[in-house]
Amino acid sequence: MATTTPAERHIESASDQSREVARIAAFSDGVFAIAITLLALQLDVPSGINVDVWAELGGLQSSFVSFAISFAVIGSYWVAHHRLFSVVERYDRRLIWLNLLSLFFIVLMPFTTSLVGEHGNVAVSVVIYAVSIALAGFANTGLAAYALVGHRLCSPSVDEQRTKYYISRGLVIGLVFLASLVLLPLGTSVVEFSWLSLIVIQRVVRWRYARPGEV
Amino acid sequence: MATTTPAERHIESASDQSREVARIAAFSDGVFAIAITLLALQLDVPSGINVDVWAELGGLQSSFVSFAISFAVIGSYWVAHHRLFSVVERYDRRLIWLNLLSLFFIVLMPFTTSLVGEHGNVAVSVVIYAVSIALAGFANTGLAAYALVGHRLCSPSVDEQRTKYYISRGLVIGLVFLASLVLLPLGTSVVEFSWLSLIVIQRVVRWRYARPGEV
Amino acid sequence: MATTTPAERHIESASDQSREVARIAAFSDGVFAIAITLLALQLDVPSGINVDVWAELGGLQSSFVSFAISFAVIGSYWVAHHRLFSVVERYDRRLIWLNLLSLFFIVLMPFTTSLVGEHGNVAVSVVIYAVSIALAGFANTGLAAYALVGHRLCSPSVDEQRTKYYISRGLVIGLVFLASLVLLPLGTSVVEFSWLSLIVIQRVVRWRYARPGEV
Amino acid sequence: MATTTPAERHIESASDQSREVARIAAFSDGVFAIAITLLALQLDVPSGINVDVWAELGGLQSSFVSFAISFAVIGSYWVAHHRLFSVVERYDRRLIWLNLLSLFFIVLMPFTTSLVGEHGNVAVSVVIYAVSIALAGFANTGLAAYALVGHRLCSPSVDEQRTKYYISRGLVIGLVFLASLVLLPLGTSVVEFSWLSLIVIQRVVRWRYARPGEV
Repeated sequence: MATTTPAERHIESASDQSREVARIAAFSDGVFAIAITLLALQLDVPSGINVDVWAELGGLQSSFVSFAISFAVIGSYWVAHHRLFSVVERYDRRLIWLNLLSLFFIVLMPFTTSLVGEHGNVAVSVVIYAVSIALAGFANTGLAAYALVGHRLCSPSVDEQRTKYYISRGLVIGLVFLASLVLLPLGTSVVEFSWLSLIVIQRVVRWRYARPGEV
Repeated sequence: MATTTPAERHIESASDQSREVARIAAFSDGVFAIAITLLALQLDVPSGINVDVWAELGGLQSSFVSFAISFAVIGSYWVAHHRLFSVVERYDRRLIWLNLLSLFFIVLMPFTTSLVGEHGNVAVSVVIYAVSIALAGFANTGLAAYALVGHRLCSPSVDEQRTKYYISRGLVIGLVFLASLVLLPLGTSVVEFSWLSLIVIQRVVRWRYARPGEV
Repeated sequence: MATTTPAERHIESASDQSREVARIAAFSDGVFAIAITLLALQLDVPSGINVDVWAELGGLQSSFVSFAISFAVIGSYWVAHHRLFSVVERYDRRLIWLNLLSLFFIVLMPFTTSLVGEHGNVAVSVVIYAVSIALAGFANTGLAAYALVGHRLCSPSVDEQRTKYYISRGLVIGLVFLASLVLLPLGTSVVEFSWLSLIVIQRVVRWRYARPGEV
Repeated sequence: MATTTPAERHIESASDQSREVARIAAFSDGVFAIAITLLALQLDVPSGINVDVWAELGGLQSSFVSFAISFAVIGSYWVAHHRLFSVVERYDRRLIWLNLLSLFFIVLMPFTTSLVGEHGNVAVSVVIYAVSIALAGFANTGLAAYALVGHRLCSPSVDEQRTKYYISRGLVIGLVFLASLVLLPLGTSVVEFSWLSLIVIQRVVRWRYARPGEV
């Protein structure tokens, strides 16, 4: 406890780093958990006593769809973040700020979800929603690339295939949401419908890059 | 640290899995904690300066009852989730998404609670409230069944009795809320009153399946 | 890993229990953290473009005072909870539900704080606020008594003095808030002013019961 | 398990302390995570069906800027808190309350951010915003000074340079926000613009005090 050799200090340091990385992950989990729960706050309960509840709830349909999509998107980003941080072992200033940048766009999602839920037929709402999701994806990819390329902040046991998979996860979501905007002239609902393609596309990415058992 | 035999790698892997399962549980806890705290946000403070506060609070009675019921329901689901994850040792893609599905219905509860609090005398509100709680229960049962049947993701020391108990917990809550809807022709307050039967029914289930000391 | 003697199983079980107690504490911390942060949501930003911001903020004075009081109250309860769970080693069904009961009153605090902030000059608001805080205190005392008396769920190393201190913490806060209501005929601000006595009273309790270094 | 010598008890005690410090840090992380996520709640979605969404969003520009600034400020304070608690090993009553005091100003930030977002052209809003951020910084510095000076609550391995760095972090942010108010006669936007100087100033502080690799 009193004196430590440089070698011992290095071991302590590694364990400290890993504890601090866990705290960064826990803070991020908190933000993900709060953002995903706040999504439902945008669902407005019909007010007034003699209101026709059934008719009013019909008007919430679009809000509910955007809530469900955003839930799936935040869920996907959380899984990607969770997997990434399971291999991150060290951290530095840039990792922390890249992580905060990717959380910035997650924190925006209750707002953009509410916007597209209430004004989903207006092109600008759909553009803002898709672009902010895309930026979240690119930030996640930047984070993964920074941590994994050249094993900068991860264990040397992370192989190239896994690195590619983790880097591509956010990128694919981002590109699909960005690309969907070319369909805007066909109407906002066509754009929104096209997002379902992610279910197939993510499966292909997983089949192409993920090792068996990888999540 | 440098080279590990396959056997060592397997041990590391088990400890990593358990760390990742803990992070999934912690994220879920976050969602449960936020949803249960947001329930109280639906209690509207009377606004205006010369308002009759006492009379206005009387109008909140129904909101307060629905708040208390939902608090107990989320509490029950959290206890069930907490118990389930105390025996889960591994995870895969399906566990994560089944878990997110069960959280989806928890996240909806502040909205449905607010709906039934303000429009509890309208049948459609009560139906939506009961169905969403039932779906949360069935999702919890699906999650438990997936993890425990055939010891897919839990320790082999989990015996059949405990598996049955954990699977039945969400199911029982879900069935009671669903069955309560047959009482709708008798009025919405009869339905709401029938939910109290859960206190007895859960006790019977516990007495039938739970081992002594089980929570 | 394969076969364990009963003795080994007991050790595992103790470590499992302690892990689960930690998860209960973490869930509770989440609720405390969210409730304390939501307190500030009741501070309404003046709306409108040509509004006199300075005058409007003056109207928020009472809301700000109630926010600060509630922050200190939730903080105190959190410290008491934190200290209690540092000695709890096992758990059972009753502990979980007593804990949920004490969280129930914490979750109510953003509502009651907002009520007393906006209608602090109305007796009924002050009564509801003081009673709900008192109930939170009594629930905390019930929780502590259940866990510590006869060392039911704590380590045998917890001595009688510490048990008394932990049991009295919530009780004292609850009694002071309850007793303050006898001053209601003198006006609501006298009641609110009397709460400051807690600063002295808690110091006396600590001086009487707490061991040196105890928090 | 049964009998422990005083020396053993001391070791247990140190490990207990470290576990409790971790719980204080986790609670604080929760508050930081919630406050940073609630910042986005102030972004009001334009309401009404035939509203000009694009024009309405233009009116949100100032709210968005204040949201981004506050996100960066809370992020900075969280990093400072995270670093500080990575070296804190023990705790006492004062540390807990100094920590709660610093969280008090973090909890205020969604309110002050909303205030400056909606009334950023009114001097009083900018003053309140800057002063509350400054107080958060000074509280953080007080917390760091209390824990680190004379190694009161940290490991003896924390050297003087690191102590200075950790104490100066909150102080610098606080001083810059406070000093910015002398520019108020030049207009509120000049004040807001001057906050960008922090990017340079923090870099200088880091270059002057931080050891290589320090975050």
